[in-house]
Amino acid sequence: MLTRIDHVGIACRDLDAAVARYESVFGLVVVSRERIEEQGVSEAMLRVADAPAGTSYVQLLEPLGPDTPVGRFLEQRGEGVHHIGYGVADITAALASIGAGGVRLIDARPRHGSMGASIAFLHPKDLGGVLTELVQAPQGPR
Amino acid sequence: MLTRIDHVGIACRDLDAAVARYESVFGLVVVSRERIEEQGVSEAMLRVADAPAGTSYVQLLEPLGPDTPVGRFLEQRGEGVHHIGYGVADITAALASIGAGGVRLIDARPRHGSMGASIAFLHPKDLGGVLTELVQAPQGPR
Repeated sequence: MLTRIDHVGIACRDLDAAVARYESVFGLVVVSRERIEEQGVSEAMLRVADAPAGTSYVQLLEPLGPDTPVGRFLEQRGEGVHHIGYGVADITAALASIGAGGVRLIDARPRHGSMGASIAFLHPKDLGGVLTELVQAPQGPR
Repeated sequence: MLTRIDHVGIACRDLDAAVARYESVFGLVVVSRERIEEQGVSEAMLRVADAPAGTSYVQLLEPLGPDTPVGRFLEQRGEGVHHIGYGVADITAALASIGAGGVRLIDARPRHGSMGASIAFLHPKDLGGVLTELVQAPQGPR
């Protein structure tokens, strides 16, 4: 079902500083920056590797305010890994299978994610404390 | 410098239950189980995807006791993502570059990791709260 580790989502207090750190320390390259009001975040996607199955990214997330999912995460946990995103070929089929298996779906239906992908989150309480995201690339692998 | 997201390391209280969950929910396959006394963990590696640059894994980690790194993590944070491992082609060169850039190295020299890899950890305080691991496959991509 899973085709790759699409991205690691990392919560930070200062997006510019976090981007500069990943660029300078690891030589990663920013391929997208977006402000997503619906999710309450400003984010940057940095390419880790390209592969036939799709690209893997580090996703750096700065909350637009304290009363947002990432803002609350920072208040409770501090900076660090916020979620893991896995690539899937068919997100609707994947959600049906996962939901039938008893995992609660935060998003019962896919919604728009960064870089034109369709995404859906799964509940961390059913997955050992890991907030897990499914990602279907906009047109085949992204 | 980074060639892929090698693995996501996830701390759990019950390895068998965590393995069963990732097998049944996501259809992942266990490719290795090891008990690593030196690191105080019992672990399983589940393959997410194969790519020319190497394979990506979910690494599930159960501590061998409370007074171990993963045991203390569970006590303080609960179950969840423990660290992120990135593939590198030359871990010695990567450590030299990263250390020169001012990031503290938990392992100044590579040591043995799971599945025959050479690994080294970087300090989370210099990387936005993310415990970060470098992984050089034993013979080319693993």
